Amino acid sequence: MEQSQRRVFVLRYGHRPGRDKRITTHTLLVARAFGAHGFILGDVVDEAIQKAYLKVIETWGGSMFFEMGINSEKYCLEWKKNNGAIIHLTMYGLHIDDVIEEIKKEPRDLLVVIGAKKVPGFFYEIADYNVAIGNQPHSEVAALAVFLDRLYEGRELHMKFPGAKIEVIPSLRGKRVKRLT
Amino acid sequence: MEQSQRRVFVLRYGHRPGRDKRITTHTLLVARAFGAHGFILGDVVDEAIQKAYLKVIETWGGSMFFEMGINSEKYCLEWKKNNGAIIHLTMYGLHIDDVIEEIKKEPRDLLVVIGAKKVPGFFYEIADYNVAIGNQPHSEVAALAVFLDRLYEGRELHMKFPGAKIEVIPSLRGKRVKRLT
Repeated sequence: MEQSQRRVFVLRYGHRPGRDKRITTHTLLVARAFGAHGFILGDVVDEAIQKAYLKVIETWGGSMFFEMGINSEKYCLEWKKNNGAIIHLTMYGLHIDDVIEEIKKEPRDLLVVIGAKKVPGFFYEIADYNVAIGNQPHSEVAALAVFLDRLYEGRELHMKFPGAKIEVIPSLRGKRVKRLT
Repeated sequence: MEQSQRRVFVLRYGHRPGRDKRITTHTLLVARAFGAHGFILGDVVDEAIQKAYLKVIETWGGSMFFEMGINSEKYCLEWKKNNGAIIHLTMYGLHIDDVIEEIKKEPRDLLVVIGAKKVPGFFYEIADYNVAIGNQPHSEVAALAVFLDRLYEGRELHMKFPGAKIEVIPSLRGKRVKRLT
């Protein structure tokens, strides 16, 4: 976000085309709307996810980076080699309240890993922080949103998205939008 | 939550069995993990969602109420008649930052409506608050989580769930759980 040069990327691990299409799309939309600078779909190529990405950027703007099909484990190793930090969101991790202040001060770029299917031990091991958004089972969509909301202290929900074609006019009732182009 | 007698129920509108199974399950898990007292699946009976509910309560505990198949519009009308307030989460609504303090002071029980498919005007009209978790498109799973997190100011992520069979031991690495029964 504007307050810092530090960038935040999201790596979606374990996506299964078809089965995970909608959940992964939600994580992608959350990444964009909550201020992530990039979204990486690990290990698979799924045109449906790319299409969802292109569609949201086309209408609602923003410059979030998108890539897919890269090897997730290699990506993490490279990320560390380039002096980035890795956050793995898992219900087994340390409670967010116990680590968020330290993470906020983290000067390195952050790679936030969120799993679909069972996540191998590799990610628990390479992560600088295994973080739980509470230690109850819920949702990687929710975990990502709350993590970014806490990281950015709510400022992310006021971002402007360059290149947007339409913008919502917040309303007490009904749906109002403004055409920008 | 423990601080107040006010209860918060979540009404999932427009669920389509099959297509929405996983997203609706995530909203149910978020409702439970983020302190809602009840989850209502409107207008349809879907055994898959009931099964997800029973499974999470069985293992992880909690006393969240669950119901399905009731008519969503009638439920809202009854809720209002019984002096409850209705919050409809929608990207077209007022920004959460502009209404959350007022909602925190709301003494009435809250019914939080989240839509799957397109939500009819009825819900925009009957809602006391149409609330946007930012005015960008993202996810009802994320919207519900952030709404409850802001409402309860993070206290919800420290709740204990009565009847749990296992509990996570937050860990820097790996997965540790404690059997409680």
